[in-house]
Amino acid sequence: MAKLNCFVAQSGGPTVAINSSLAGVIKGVADSEMYDTIYGSVNGILGILDNRILNLSEKVPDDKELLCLKHTPAMYLGSCRYKLPDYHRDDSDYKRIFEQFKRYNIGAFFYIGGNDSMDTVLKLSEYGSLIGSDVKIIGIPKTVDNDLMVTDHTPGFGSAAKYVATSLLEIAHDTFIYAVKSVTIVEIMGRDAGWLTAASALARNGYNTAPHFIYLPEVPFDKDKFIEDAKEFLKTNNNLIVAISEGIRDKAGNYISAGDCVADHFGHKMLSGAGQALAEIVKEEIGVKVRSVEVNVLQRCAAHEASKTDLDEAFNSGHKAVELAEAGVTASMVTMTRSSNAPYTIEYGYARIAGIANEAKSVPVEWINERGNDVTAEMIDYLKPLIEGEVTLTYRDGIPVYMDVSHLKPGVLPVEKR
Amino acid sequence: MAKLNCFVAQSGGPTVAINSSLAGVIKGVADSEMYDTIYGSVNGILGILDNRILNLSEKVPDDKELLCLKHTPAMYLGSCRYKLPDYHRDDSDYKRIFEQFKRYNIGAFFYIGGNDSMDTVLKLSEYGSLIGSDVKIIGIPKTVDNDLMVTDHTPGFGSAAKYVATSLLEIAHDTFIYAVKSVTIVEIMGRDAGWLTAASALARNGYNTAPHFIYLPEVPFDKDKFIEDAKEFLKTNNNLIVAISEGIRDKAGNYISAGDCVADHFGHKMLSGAGQALAEIVKEEIGVKVRSVEVNVLQRCAAHEASKTDLDEAFNSGHKAVELAEAGVTASMVTMTRSSNAPYTIEYGYARIAGIANEAKSVPVEWINERGNDVTAEMIDYLKPLIEGEVTLTYRDGIPVYMDVSHLKPGVLPVEKR
Repeated sequence: MAKLNCFVAQSGGPTVAINSSLAGVIKGVADSEMYDTIYGSVNGILGILDNRILNLSEKVPDDKELLCLKHTPAMYLGSCRYKLPDYHRDDSDYKRIFEQFKRYNIGAFFYIGGNDSMDTVLKLSEYGSLIGSDVKIIGIPKTVDNDLMVTDHTPGFGSAAKYVATSLLEIAHDTFIYAVKSVTIVEIMGRDAGWLTAASALARNGYNTAPHFIYLPEVPFDKDKFIEDAKEFLKTNNNLIVAISEGIRDKAGNYISAGDCVADHFGHKMLSGAGQALAEIVKEEIGVKVRSVEVNVLQRCAAHEASKTDLDEAFNSGHKAVELAEAGVTASMVTMTRSSNAPYTIEYGYARIAGIANEAKSVPVEWINERGNDVTAEMIDYLKPLIEGEVTLTYRDGIPVYMDVSHLKPGVLPVEKR
Repeated sequence: MAKLNCFVAQSGGPTVAINSSLAGVIKGVADSEMYDTIYGSVNGILGILDNRILNLSEKVPDDKELLCLKHTPAMYLGSCRYKLPDYHRDDSDYKRIFEQFKRYNIGAFFYIGGNDSMDTVLKLSEYGSLIGSDVKIIGIPKTVDNDLMVTDHTPGFGSAAKYVATSLLEIAHDTFIYAVKSVTIVEIMGRDAGWLTAASALARNGYNTAPHFIYLPEVPFDKDKFIEDAKEFLKTNNNLIVAISEGIRDKAGNYISAGDCVADHFGHKMLSGAGQALAEIVKEEIGVKVRSVEVNVLQRCAAHEASKTDLDEAFNSGHKAVELAEAGVTASMVTMTRSSNAPYTIEYGYARIAGIANEAKSVPVEWINERGNDVTAEMIDYLKPLIEGEVTLTYRDGIPVYMDVSHLKPGVLPVEKR
């Protein structure tokens, strides 16, 4: 029987590990008896629609290139934020996608992404089943937010968590040097889920107790308690460091933001974030030196501080997806189950996509302390293994060597008229 | 003859390499025939005034501890922003300091810092000469701004430059994934000198031409030219990335800032920076997706992305300072002279402090292109060697192992009444 080919695409926001999953898929296809060529769809599902396709079996031919891909941040294949329409209402995209599957002799499609991408996996699976397609549709999870259901955790999160913990420790060293009272607010990504902010607790060690307070979006932020706690801390200490999720809200559910009354000189409202808002509160109510640090996009793309555990798990998840498709599984997402914490052991499996897409996993309230200003020991136990292990990048001229992504430039892969 | 002891202190803003210079001083004293114990003054010159002193020969006794110190960011000894008064007007601090020199049997004092710290070196040298003191006073340069006179470059700068270049490349990967027009403004430290922003150019490689424009404080920022250049670029490209110094100014010398008309809901003026200001300009005049990324304090404390060249040079500068004091040099700062670029070769020397303190070295205008939106090849040649080489940190539980800085906490080393 002639071998079939595969499609793979990446979608949603960047992580450090999403190319490692792609490398796992490429290796999975290379190892497979059933599949021949792995084609990459550029800019998520849009690449299939627009016929912007890369032959990855040629572009990433050997272990050296695979390793470089594994170490490269963000999406080698580009991303998209495209949501497929309801196929009952408009099935034109679906027709085109399944035509493309035929044209490329596709046996399986792998979509690496977060919640929105799993929605695409669900819809394509349903439509495929409706038209009696044999193409296996498998989702491979990624997100720095760690908010996907069913799986113990999500590839991409561990590296972001390691970056946050390392940065927090370095900010602590930066902060401890002055013998004056100060407050530093560190704002971390997480609009609805506090996992990544919780990971700042991993910066604590024998001499560093920062972050001294941690606020997550899962419990309401109480301004009065915060001021009380901060004042109490500063009685006997100099440098207070506070980690907050960008998405913290008050009891009424409103985001803590300094921006609601602020307009710039063009008359625009300027939305400054929760960090700036807390800095203003400190200035007003406590009156010590204060600084707000926004951990920027690097928390999701700093491949130079990746977790080895994370990159390996991302790779294994990609490889597992190909094995699942070969075994006849479809309409599913790869999952990780933690079978033991000491030694840390992960088993790879899968779950039906229907129960995963469009749901989000929050931090359990039991893993936040009663005062609402810290995480519990259970949280630390859960997080610790995920940031273990370091990755040695190759450098040239003082900067890391990543994969050439010139194919993402406009015009390099032209859009095919439908 | 009984051996003399030494004082060392650190001052000013943090860098990744300032503890490497401290390690160099400690090793220098250990290697010396003339000096016995090296004492660390905690919180800069204040530690000598307040008698908050660490015995570094005991605290950092062997090569293992020295290596850990070399890798630890910010100041192991803490810092201060204290400027000594004019001794003609008030010599009480000076009297106390030279009494402390006697009390600890000090033969040399090493001050690691930037411009303000060199001012302290100058004043102490002058006062010492006035009272006929034999204590040698030597400055060891550090600053991420690279704006100290006479020396080819300054320890601490190379690591910050490597962090900026690496981060810029990773931000480029993060940005290139969406096939939509966008502008990303990356704001980098440098109020008066553009060296660190210029280092963003080192992110360019075979496939990455970002940052596409670079704006430094040394030439006036022309808003109209910027809009024109950005529009032209976006005609044929999707993702424009612009690197700017926080200190860019217009022709009239006013800082580019979105903050002058902005007030928060407490009535405070909120000073948002140049990055936010440029983002507003793009929104207003070009109308594409725009994001402003402020490279935060990590550019000066991310030891996890240090330049090996930088840490080695910082260490050598510290060691050289001890050698100079032994040879009878005083009232001077350690300098580096580049004798060759290929192979990159540095010679360590010294210069009289009088010509260095309170002066600042700007980027030469010839190293900025005529359009004022990029740096020249000469700048790249100058910068490239400084970010070469990587440092392998030790990790425990997924985060770097740095030196315990508990001694900086209030009360651990009590202030002695004068």
